[in-house]
Amino acid sequence: MGIIVQKFGGSSVANVERMKRVAGIIASNHAQGNQIVVVVSAMGDSTDDLLELASQITSNPSPREIDMLLTTGEQVSISLLTMALHSLGIPAISLTGWQAGITTESIHGKARVKNIENRRIIDELKQGKVVIVAGFQGISKEGEITTLGRGGSDTSAVSLAAAIEADLCEIYTDVEGVYTSDPRVVKNAQKLNEISYDEMLELANLGAVVLHPRAVENAKNHNVRLVVRSSFINKEGTIIKEEKEMESVKVVTGVAHDLDVARVQVIDLDNELGTLSNLFKTLANHSINVDMIVTSDYYADKINVSFSISNKDLKETLQILENNSSTNTKIKFDQNLAKVSIVGAGMISNPGVAAEMFHILSKAGIPIRMVSTSEIKVSCLVPSEQALEAVMVLHESFHLEGSLVNK
Amino acid sequence: MGIIVQKFGGSSVANVERMKRVAGIIASNHAQGNQIVVVVSAMGDSTDDLLELASQITSNPSPREIDMLLTTGEQVSISLLTMALHSLGIPAISLTGWQAGITTESIHGKARVKNIENRRIIDELKQGKVVIVAGFQGISKEGEITTLGRGGSDTSAVSLAAAIEADLCEIYTDVEGVYTSDPRVVKNAQKLNEISYDEMLELANLGAVVLHPRAVENAKNHNVRLVVRSSFINKEGTIIKEEKEMESVKVVTGVAHDLDVARVQVIDLDNELGTLSNLFKTLANHSINVDMIVTSDYYADKINVSFSISNKDLKETLQILENNSSTNTKIKFDQNLAKVSIVGAGMISNPGVAAEMFHILSKAGIPIRMVSTSEIKVSCLVPSEQALEAVMVLHESFHLEGSLVNK
Repeated sequence: MGIIVQKFGGSSVANVERMKRVAGIIASNHAQGNQIVVVVSAMGDSTDDLLELASQITSNPSPREIDMLLTTGEQVSISLLTMALHSLGIPAISLTGWQAGITTESIHGKARVKNIENRRIIDELKQGKVVIVAGFQGISKEGEITTLGRGGSDTSAVSLAAAIEADLCEIYTDVEGVYTSDPRVVKNAQKLNEISYDEMLELANLGAVVLHPRAVENAKNHNVRLVVRSSFINKEGTIIKEEKEMESVKVVTGVAHDLDVARVQVIDLDNELGTLSNLFKTLANHSINVDMIVTSDYYADKINVSFSISNKDLKETLQILENNSSTNTKIKFDQNLAKVSIVGAGMISNPGVAAEMFHILSKAGIPIRMVSTSEIKVSCLVPSEQALEAVMVLHESFHLEGSLVNK
Repeated sequence: MGIIVQKFGGSSVANVERMKRVAGIIASNHAQGNQIVVVVSAMGDSTDDLLELASQITSNPSPREIDMLLTTGEQVSISLLTMALHSLGIPAISLTGWQAGITTESIHGKARVKNIENRRIIDELKQGKVVIVAGFQGISKEGEITTLGRGGSDTSAVSLAAAIEADLCEIYTDVEGVYTSDPRVVKNAQKLNEISYDEMLELANLGAVVLHPRAVENAKNHNVRLVVRSSFINKEGTIIKEEKEMESVKVVTGVAHDLDVARVQVIDLDNELGTLSNLFKTLANHSINVDMIVTSDYYADKINVSFSISNKDLKETLQILENNSSTNTKIKFDQNLAKVSIVGAGMISNPGVAAEMFHILSKAGIPIRMVSTSEIKVSCLVPSEQALEAVMVLHESFHLEGSLVNK
């Protein structure tokens, strides 16, 4: 018995049949005496259908109106799922983001959660109800409907779990858990039984799309115990928790890839105090997430800066750079790149893992266009067409298919 | 130049093309320097599609969750229509019912508007924006999303017009205005150039579905000047305004019919002080609208009461009566009836109009099952299968096709 937050993604509620299945999962957890808050996404492709409608109206919709439009998707899901629970005799109530007290930044399309006023949810739980909350959405302090951006429902779930001090936050999805690499690419990829927040964070950031990085970061910050598991098959998933609880630490835990990468080069910037800070502050003000950054020789009059971003931000980034650049500055970009990364908490005490990665890639004839490292991961930009090959050779060379996992 | 509220129903925004057409109408009014608030319904059949989804989940959905579900329809419309205005270069902003400050009773499915806090709308208008408000919806004082029931968007429009002291409230619909009778039934029915609130109220209450009666009542109470006109054809519609402004008053202005009628008989009620009051108070508490009421001889020990209601309320009404009746009381009902009515402000000074109506119907072999009258209308319940014939003979006999209208 405890308080559990359960999150169901769009594919888990894609149609009425699946929604009834999800209601069944919730009902059986409720029957065990748990207090349950459910976070649910829009049904299947309904978000894409709404975007398609908008695109028939205008090619350049206002982010505020897109949020107004898209948040209806989750509102449909919460009402239908609540009805499905009612029909199983389970007391339940649906709440929109603003009804659930989820306050976000005053920004559209990718707002961050600022605060959750949990009174309403706690009240409903006390009355014995399952509380069904619309994922992906919140309200700004000005009373505007906002969305949390991609993977926003994961973030909703973890934020709610933190706000109501849930014992567990279960992320139900269409895969069985977190794998050593993408099972669609690497045939003998293994499901991990457990993984640390930091490792998951790196994997999530690196395009292992099973869980949104902001959600993992949030979970780590508030020490929310996460489980990723399948909504289709009743099997143990992957537990994501503090490293120190874990039995052993592997050098490399997983290999991730991200095909949605664009590299931008800004050439001949004046090398002045504040040049870099101005450049990246301007991008940050527009909520452009910059990933890897490389600068040329710092002692010259002019410097070049290269950085990588998500492909979807490329158009806006180029526009911002043009509006803010002096006439001498040149801007180049490259969309034919992908990021391949290895992740593992064990790297901290194992120098030379990066060198081994470079060796494996070069032996396979895969050029490295850019490198970035953290304490527990190494990422390389490689040509898109060689990205999956890179994942496979790394997975094999670091022996991830074997006894390393599934302890 | 002035403040105009424009309401567009579901058929006016049934698809992207029509939505763009509506944006064009708004844009041309905006170009004339008017401040415009638009109230819009859900697109075409989208409300029915949502109800169909709900029916696949449960046959007995909670009214609260149905409101949660259905209000997404208008939210989709407001965002898309706002985008369409943006693409024409018109500044515009969408507001849900709660964002527009529309507070309603704490009841689901047919809440009445209690108050409109107009600050946000006024602010946006001052900034030169067209304000697009979701019709049919509001928020209760407990923060629950509510709907106003059938024709609710008309009510939203009129309530908003009153709250912001609009100069005009235009109801755009799929007909060209208010007719002397239903043009689909009576071939030579005439469009009225103007009609008084009271006449329109009677017509609206009597099943001339061009405008919801609650909206007309609201308009009368707040002296909101209403216009009903077509969103497909650019033609003058019908003005609904105070009687005293009108040039002349006809004895009979229109003939209306309502096929959605059920008659309920409660037989052998104890004839006590409070019997009738208890009966109809119980129904009112469940928001059942009772129309015509007839009681049997008042001096007997037992009395019979007959009344008419909307067909859709029949199931609930029978349930309520069963739960509240003593064992001796019998309940009967009849669904094969329709209401046919004549309306006209001129009846006040023309006794004998009712008698003439009864004469016309009996001459045509149409039996009258129940009668109710007001100062400006006479209604008769007749067998459903003879209702349209009744409308036609009344329209003809009261000479509504001729010079009486279109002054």
